[in-house]
Amino acid sequence: MKIERPRSRQPLPDHAKLVFKGVMFDVYQWEQKLYDGSSATFERLKRPDTVMVIPVTEDGRIIITRQEQPGRAASFCLPGGRVDEAEDVLSAAKRELMEETGYESETWSLWDSQQPVLKIEWAIFTFVARGCRKTAGLTLDAGEKINLQDVSFEEFVELIVNGDFSDHELVPRFLRARLHPNGMEDLKREILG
Amino acid sequence: MKIERPRSRQPLPDHAKLVFKGVMFDVYQWEQKLYDGSSATFERLKRPDTVMVIPVTEDGRIIITRQEQPGRAASFCLPGGRVDEAEDVLSAAKRELMEETGYESETWSLWDSQQPVLKIEWAIFTFVARGCRKTAGLTLDAGEKINLQDVSFEEFVELIVNGDFSDHELVPRFLRARLHPNGMEDLKREILG
Repeated sequence: MKIERPRSRQPLPDHAKLVFKGVMFDVYQWEQKLYDGSSATFERLKRPDTVMVIPVTEDGRIIITRQEQPGRAASFCLPGGRVDEAEDVLSAAKRELMEETGYESETWSLWDSQQPVLKIEWAIFTFVARGCRKTAGLTLDAGEKINLQDVSFEEFVELIVNGDFSDHELVPRFLRARLHPNGMEDLKREILG
Repeated sequence: MKIERPRSRQPLPDHAKLVFKGVMFDVYQWEQKLYDGSSATFERLKRPDTVMVIPVTEDGRIIITRQEQPGRAASFCLPGGRVDEAEDVLSAAKRELMEETGYESETWSLWDSQQPVLKIEWAIFTFVARGCRKTAGLTLDAGEKINLQDVSFEEFVELIVNGDFSDHELVPRFLRARLHPNGMEDLKREILG
């Protein structure tokens, strides 16, 4: 599977300088020429890309997680997380699915990719993993509490469009599917196969 | 008008330390206790809040802008921008509307407020300004090129739901209005009055 990284609407220029390296966010600055010939310091951030997985079992149920993290309200999430340095995005998706749910799949497809925030170089890749089977327990970080649930396609869509997932980036695509005449059928086929 | 600042889903703790101060973004870190008693450095950003304005003229047209900024694709935007230090949000909305369009209004209401990004302390306030009248020319920064257009309510909704605005934060609310039986009527009343 060839996976292209989505382009930012406001790309970080090549000559931008790293001015701060944080534990998650790096800050870049550059001198930007303005329309009147003067210039100003522009700033943009970079953070690790992330992956999300829509895991579908052999009988068409979707596995979702209820996650708690310190200092953050509990919410529904898709299994997923950061892409490690030098890790490819599909491997990251497989690893996160295994760690957070104990499920495995041999049928992967990229369903969505986007850079959601204008001033952050940050791509989110959303995969569909079909025929998922539970082969192991969960392997959680000390900063995660996760409970698994499985829901029908219809229940999944309802949770997403109601904003019950912490992953708000998918909401417009699901709402648009509801608005189009064959949108829900198409979406169901894209996800369940 | 009493305006409450929307709360983040992952608030910055009081003991977080400022570790970098950028031209737009400040980086904060703190030691976070995890579920197993160990701890880790957590990181979160803070940036100035922003305001957006939906300006409605006396004959029910909506004023939108086509904006270019260096290094960023041209797109439709609502008039708006950053809230300055020690400025209240309504004053910022009035100032940005005047600078970017030359329009003024005496009838303001807060239509939406949200913190769109989990890891950034950043609120966006969207106002409706009715009965707008053009009283001045534009006062632009050296980093802005702006063309004004006026559109009908229906054209405005179409541009928003198609994702033609750089302000993606409003898309779900407009899509939801389309999905509900009286949603579009209600939305039209909220905006045009």
